[in-house]
Amino acid sequence: MTGRVALVGAGPGDAGLLTIRGLRALKAADVIVADRLGARSVLDGLVAEGVLLEAEVVDVGKLPGHHAVPQDAINELLVTLAREGKRVVRLKGGDPYIFGRGGEELAYCRDRGVDVEVVPGITSAVSVPAIAGIPLTHRGLATTFTVVTGHDQIQALGGGRNHTVVLLMGVGTLANSAITLARGERGGECPVAIVEDGYGPRQRVTIGTLDTIAYQAAERGVRSPAVVVVGDVVRLSPYAPAELATSAFAAPPVID
Amino acid sequence: MTGRVALVGAGPGDAGLLTIRGLRALKAADVIVADRLGARSVLDGLVAEGVLLEAEVVDVGKLPGHHAVPQDAINELLVTLAREGKRVVRLKGGDPYIFGRGGEELAYCRDRGVDVEVVPGITSAVSVPAIAGIPLTHRGLATTFTVVTGHDQIQALGGGRNHTVVLLMGVGTLANSAITLARGERGGECPVAIVEDGYGPRQRVTIGTLDTIAYQAAERGVRSPAVVVVGDVVRLSPYAPAELATSAFAAPPVID
Repeated sequence: MTGRVALVGAGPGDAGLLTIRGLRALKAADVIVADRLGARSVLDGLVAEGVLLEAEVVDVGKLPGHHAVPQDAINELLVTLAREGKRVVRLKGGDPYIFGRGGEELAYCRDRGVDVEVVPGITSAVSVPAIAGIPLTHRGLATTFTVVTGHDQIQALGGGRNHTVVLLMGVGTLANSAITLARGERGGECPVAIVEDGYGPRQRVTIGTLDTIAYQAAERGVRSPAVVVVGDVVRLSPYAPAELATSAFAAPPVID
Repeated sequence: MTGRVALVGAGPGDAGLLTIRGLRALKAADVIVADRLGARSVLDGLVAEGVLLEAEVVDVGKLPGHHAVPQDAINELLVTLAREGKRVVRLKGGDPYIFGRGGEELAYCRDRGVDVEVVPGITSAVSVPAIAGIPLTHRGLATTFTVVTGHDQIQALGGGRNHTVVLLMGVGTLANSAITLARGERGGECPVAIVEDGYGPRQRVTIGTLDTIAYQAAERGVRSPAVVVVGDVVRLSPYAPAELATSAFAAPPVID
């Protein structure tokens, strides 16, 4: 029997947001190689709903900035398991191709003759803001969005409040990012939302402006994992304080 | 009985890429109000797989740039059906919150006291490039991506080839967009991919550079729906011609 690898996006951590194809791959798997963030909670959720998973689960414990198993070892593990004839699911939080290093795992397997399939997942960049009632685009408020990690990339970003910015893994550098973005066309009054632990038990939304958000985050003890959204679409959130929400609807910039 | 509305993202058009929660909502629905692009083919796919859907399907036939039913009428239809006590699924291609006007439909229903739930879907912006083997981010090639519609927004975009740009609904303005992007830091040699009809029967990938892509698109008769990807990640596609693919791996810029 020939083994194979499926790189499956688990989505943001809610078992219901796994895809039908992802579920089928998990049910058919001999081994599931799972990240901690997102992927683990999806497996737990499926088991809680009575879904029978017969696969062995290998937890490679990948958290942002803290890899329990180095990427090289994960790559090698996938190839080794597939060569043993196993049907392997590599279950990754979010989408395998969005900051998931899925492209690297795919290339590593293919270069060694292992058959690989990619099953897209729902990226946290889109679905976590949605939990806070924030669409990344909205007629009259935003027609463009950028997803970014790391402070270096933020410095090169132009655009105004109608160009939504989503920062992933951005809690550690939030203060610097906010200052950088405030210096540009967006200005210090631009609304910002932080959504902690998107689909998890510690879910919490903090809303302010580029001028205030670092202070608010420090005061509330905001922690990773969190998704940060910057732009006028934040005003649509039911969590937005009245002064932000009201001004948006009083005079929305019409750009559509 | 009180009616309610679920705004469900159908994903890019493959029934297997619908979420588990989305499927549950469809099975429980009395009425499904469906777009044509993406949503219709997911319903057809589910029926072909033997999934029993008892709901009445109302096709509002929304195609890019061609709305068979005006948005106002769709909004009103959702409210009317919910007030009749029906469980309504508004099935939208991709994700309801990415260029889907989901935020408007949600606001319209909520303002009229109708209970609304949002079920995220897999956006074409991420999943259609994936079909062509293109991750939007990749270590050493790109750590930022921007999703954009419309030529006005493209003019304000900075960044180099390590900042991936995804154009949705961009076939009509492709020639202008390519010229604009080529004038910036990316330059005319920057790789571009067009993926037509992502998960549909007319799926086709065309790869070139900002300098050549408009000519290639005209020559091959490229049509909507299509997703355009601009940046060095395009080199990772197995469809990339050798001269693009090779140079990328010979000397990838290390930015991670």
